[in-house]
Amino acid sequence: MTYQKIMGHKHAIAIHGGAGTILRESMTPKMEKEYLSGLSNALHAGDNILSQGGTAMDAVEAAIISLEDNPLFNAGKGSVFTHEGTHEMDAAIMDGATLEAGAAAGVTGVKNPIKLARAIMEQSQHVMLSGQGARDFAKTLGLAFENEDYFFVQQRFDQLNEIKDSDLTQMDHSMKDSLHDKKFGTVGAVALDKMGNLAAGTSTGGMTNKRFGRIGDTPIIGAGTYANNHTCAISCTGHGEYFIRAVVAYDISCLMAYKGLTLQQACDEVVMNKLVAFGGEGGLIAIDNQGNIALPFNSAGMYRGSKKQDEDFFTAIYGS
Amino acid sequence: MTYQKIMGHKHAIAIHGGAGTILRESMTPKMEKEYLSGLSNALHAGDNILSQGGTAMDAVEAAIISLEDNPLFNAGKGSVFTHEGTHEMDAAIMDGATLEAGAAAGVTGVKNPIKLARAIMEQSQHVMLSGQGARDFAKTLGLAFENEDYFFVQQRFDQLNEIKDSDLTQMDHSMKDSLHDKKFGTVGAVALDKMGNLAAGTSTGGMTNKRFGRIGDTPIIGAGTYANNHTCAISCTGHGEYFIRAVVAYDISCLMAYKGLTLQQACDEVVMNKLVAFGGEGGLIAIDNQGNIALPFNSAGMYRGSKKQDEDFFTAIYGS
Repeated sequence: MTYQKIMGHKHAIAIHGGAGTILRESMTPKMEKEYLSGLSNALHAGDNILSQGGTAMDAVEAAIISLEDNPLFNAGKGSVFTHEGTHEMDAAIMDGATLEAGAAAGVTGVKNPIKLARAIMEQSQHVMLSGQGARDFAKTLGLAFENEDYFFVQQRFDQLNEIKDSDLTQMDHSMKDSLHDKKFGTVGAVALDKMGNLAAGTSTGGMTNKRFGRIGDTPIIGAGTYANNHTCAISCTGHGEYFIRAVVAYDISCLMAYKGLTLQQACDEVVMNKLVAFGGEGGLIAIDNQGNIALPFNSAGMYRGSKKQDEDFFTAIYGS
Repeated sequence: MTYQKIMGHKHAIAIHGGAGTILRESMTPKMEKEYLSGLSNALHAGDNILSQGGTAMDAVEAAIISLEDNPLFNAGKGSVFTHEGTHEMDAAIMDGATLEAGAAAGVTGVKNPIKLARAIMEQSQHVMLSGQGARDFAKTLGLAFENEDYFFVQQRFDQLNEIKDSDLTQMDHSMKDSLHDKKFGTVGAVALDKMGNLAAGTSTGGMTNKRFGRIGDTPIIGAGTYANNHTCAISCTGHGEYFIRAVVAYDISCLMAYKGLTLQQACDEVVMNKLVAFGGEGGLIAIDNQGNIALPFNSAGMYRGSKKQDEDFFTAIYGS
């Protein structure tokens, strides 16, 4: 009985694999199936942990590792190329129970940046480490590294070569008509566990052809990633510069905490009103401490999925 | 008359030069005078611009340049040493009228990191650049660089050698009994101009003996720096990890926007209640769109100053 009381919450998880101009007509049935399968695999990885009484933090990490290891998504293996032909990845994770957080910015070679973000949270005095220093820290902990061959994906390399000599940057992993087919390549997960704890995580390979050590919203606590047991857990995907300036993730939490909005109301206000007026394209996944889930986006599509205890798995790509 | 209408706001500016365990008994009269003089010079630099009808952005930048160029403060010249014996500086600036922002993280050699932050805002597609990439961007713009001799300050070097072989980091520029005399070395400015526009900026040399490319709250929009004409402009100084996790600057803006608190009420709630309960030591400077100023801190002291149109210059170091 005590166990039942402690474990009294119905668990739930939501994930995303990026948002943008994802159009049905530019997708083959085979590709569509592969994307949906990738989302489903990530949801299962997280749900398996939650259904066995595991923590939201573990579920978020497992779902993101599944997406990082899948070359279809722009994070970990499958990360896009920088202008210099390298891969600079960002990731963050936050524990809604303690408000502890960890973030890595501009790291190279680390197989699973989300593991590094969690290690920074749990094993350093800091919240955010960057560049070579973050890589050195990962090395001291013995985290798995991979060489350039692992991260090399032909399609990503072709994307770079298409725009390398221009000043253009690309927000994400695109298909053939990439200059016209804008997508924001990020993966993320949010979860509520049976103990009632929330967690959020986000991971990205950044923008194709990015330069100058650009850091987007993904590793910024409050912008791309935020979790707080009193309100919600959020992971964003979109045009990062706008998400930073609008402090998107924490704005949703504040609208709930200070204005009494529901999760869905707060998400609609920020994603469909404020960001649209601002010119910020993208979306996010959100879960509150009752297990309600919102998956708003103002772009044509967002790779997304969710699974609530006692409900079926849901995955989708396009808007309605 | 039209000019008077456009220029109808009474301008004001506030600055800080760091917070922490700043005790009267560990300060000589000569040092105290030098600190107050440094604060006064920075206030004058900003106030001169505002009183002539200049912008809040220009005033914030000028005040911070004055503090960066002063070796007493941990930003620009006078930045503390990292574990590797280098200087890695962070800075951010935000325009409350447009919500545009620029930030540089972990840059070396740039004479005035606040100028780089503004250049990133105005001349790049991005909000945040880091490390070697940020340095490269500064080079392409022809910003002023200085060699290690310029940044070398004996007192800072002694601080590093005191704790280099330990795992300790130091939040700031401390005096002789540095291990017991904790200060958070950051400088910042917030301003309201005659047009009614707000701006905020922050700059820091980070923590003595910091490692692994640690990024604190200073360059994080929403954490250490935030400005919005509808609410307030904020620049923080304190234990950065806590300020990131609490999204301090944007929290104050949200308490005003969504809960109707005054600037002073919002500052008290965040700095004196939430941060204290959280264990986050430090303070901040804040100004609202009516020119009200708040300078809250939960540490023993904070180097601070303010100047309102039609009022005298104010500078102070200790708490009451």
